[in-house]
Amino acid sequence: MRAAVFNEPGLPLELTDREVSTPQAGELFIRLKAAALNRRDYWITQGMYPGLKSDVIQGSDGAGIVEAVGSTEDADWLGKEVIINPGLNWGEDQEVQSTGFHILGMPQDGTFAQAISVPVENVFLKPSHLDWQEASALPLAGVTAFRAVTRGQVTAHDTVLITGIGGGVATMALKFCVALGAKVLVTSSSPEKIEKAVELGATAGFLYSEAGWEKRVSREYGPVSLILDGAGGPGYFGLLQLAAPGGRVVNYGATAGAPDKLDLFKVFWKQLRLIGTTMGSSVDFQNMLACVEEFQIVPSVDTTFSLETVNQALQHMQSASQFGKIVLAVE
Amino acid sequence: MRAAVFNEPGLPLELTDREVSTPQAGELFIRLKAAALNRRDYWITQGMYPGLKSDVIQGSDGAGIVEAVGSTEDADWLGKEVIINPGLNWGEDQEVQSTGFHILGMPQDGTFAQAISVPVENVFLKPSHLDWQEASALPLAGVTAFRAVTRGQVTAHDTVLITGIGGGVATMALKFCVALGAKVLVTSSSPEKIEKAVELGATAGFLYSEAGWEKRVSREYGPVSLILDGAGGPGYFGLLQLAAPGGRVVNYGATAGAPDKLDLFKVFWKQLRLIGTTMGSSVDFQNMLACVEEFQIVPSVDTTFSLETVNQALQHMQSASQFGKIVLAVE
Repeated sequence: MRAAVFNEPGLPLELTDREVSTPQAGELFIRLKAAALNRRDYWITQGMYPGLKSDVIQGSDGAGIVEAVGSTEDADWLGKEVIINPGLNWGEDQEVQSTGFHILGMPQDGTFAQAISVPVENVFLKPSHLDWQEASALPLAGVTAFRAVTRGQVTAHDTVLITGIGGGVATMALKFCVALGAKVLVTSSSPEKIEKAVELGATAGFLYSEAGWEKRVSREYGPVSLILDGAGGPGYFGLLQLAAPGGRVVNYGATAGAPDKLDLFKVFWKQLRLIGTTMGSSVDFQNMLACVEEFQIVPSVDTTFSLETVNQALQHMQSASQFGKIVLAVE
Repeated sequence: MRAAVFNEPGLPLELTDREVSTPQAGELFIRLKAAALNRRDYWITQGMYPGLKSDVIQGSDGAGIVEAVGSTEDADWLGKEVIINPGLNWGEDQEVQSTGFHILGMPQDGTFAQAISVPVENVFLKPSHLDWQEASALPLAGVTAFRAVTRGQVTAHDTVLITGIGGGVATMALKFCVALGAKVLVTSSSPEKIEKAVELGATAGFLYSEAGWEKRVSREYGPVSLILDGAGGPGYFGLLQLAAPGGRVVNYGATAGAPDKLDLFKVFWKQLRLIGTTMGSSVDFQNMLACVEEFQIVPSVDTTFSLETVNQALQHMQSASQFGKIVLAVE
């Protein structure tokens, strides 16, 4: 089968032929129809990810058809259209992943290939309202966004600010928050992305490149009770100022780096909760799927590349111009 | 009546004679038996508190006997031994105080006096197992510690690290956590304070002046699921390292200043919750009292001064050598 393999940092992924794996007991063999990129894939190519190994098939997100089973008791899965939860060994504690937790694509072979074998407990029926590309766009961004929204305890009473709209997680979070009835505001450096977010149900957006935007948010749209942020960095200080007293600030990433200051006086006087979250457990994944089904949520797909042009897809990710997920169609 | 009045920063409080107030409708007039100091009182004398006004009687904590009522329907209170919740206008939202919230002693006359009139809803029966000085030591430290413990959701399964033991809030938090069955570890710069904490039920203590103490904590006592911190400052970074994955770090103050860095990567990867809290609502105060009654908790009183020697008491607070509360006996 064809596969996109990481060998060493800085180089493009190698498109190569690999032996098709045989599913072990408890595994399902899935003929992949689509895979999706995550920022992690780009970081790996840049050597900016812990525990790198060479000769590993990249990719965490995938959707396809079950073609073989490792255990006869899983025969019911044969022919089923499925998506894959890329998280392995989360562990029992819903609060936090175990030290053995990892996701497909490093150090274990991933989804940028024509097929993959994964444990049956990581396989879920594809929501029927999604096509292959939309389905492949769902897993990692969906579970990360859903867990962030859950840990932030979003309700219809919340005004939620989602930073960096256009990113896969931010865009899924927008859809979950809108579905749950919250008022959603977004930030971006791009007026076009803000426009798209408003089409998807956001009330308004702010260009974070404009000085003083934080003050306009509450003035124009009232107190912001929940912030979902994947950036951190120098802008984090302004988020704590912007957050309403008693508010929550959920972080699922720090693409802009670690903030160089924490105004703890603000944190305790405003009784804020700063909540870290990353990816999600199998329970989160199932709850995410239930929410996607209930509200017929469709992940935003920005562009679709072929598996053979995965390196162009990674370059497109680097440009940060996308709105939603970058997908690989697999044939 | 005699009263200790703030006039301007940097000067000692003025001991002076004041007219005894008449309780307004809905107020109770309390002949004070004891008052207690809080760090806030010291900060006010140093001009380090917002909204300073001159000619204000200092002090937030007090206990005494109801001697007059402003409304006849409150006549049942006459002769009752009571303590005072110093928080006024918290508001309806349990998550956070309203903007009108303030506490006795600034800008409103406080408890460093022979008597005070306060709204009846701020008055509670003195727990009968406490003497006057212990009772006066309870309100602000007690409610702050109890809310911190509540927001940290402490249970008997937690290993709790309480920083800066000896402080009024930290010491009350120790007692609440021990009562609730948690394993408690403490930090201090003083071996004597650690020894006292162990006498009160702490499992062990660490001198935070010793380099690398953070690493010893988990090695010797297992993962720390909850940290209660009132210091912030440069040590905050180490607390986030020390916290167990999935743990909570509750801050009720930042006496050591704002941390100059926030390792958000740690926060999201370890799925930490950083929770700010300050003082407490009337509901918190009632729940705190119920806990004090149930477990027969007695606040630690470090030393007792007379009202006339309040400035010596403030100097003693400045030395930071105390374990528990500094109290004023009032005659």
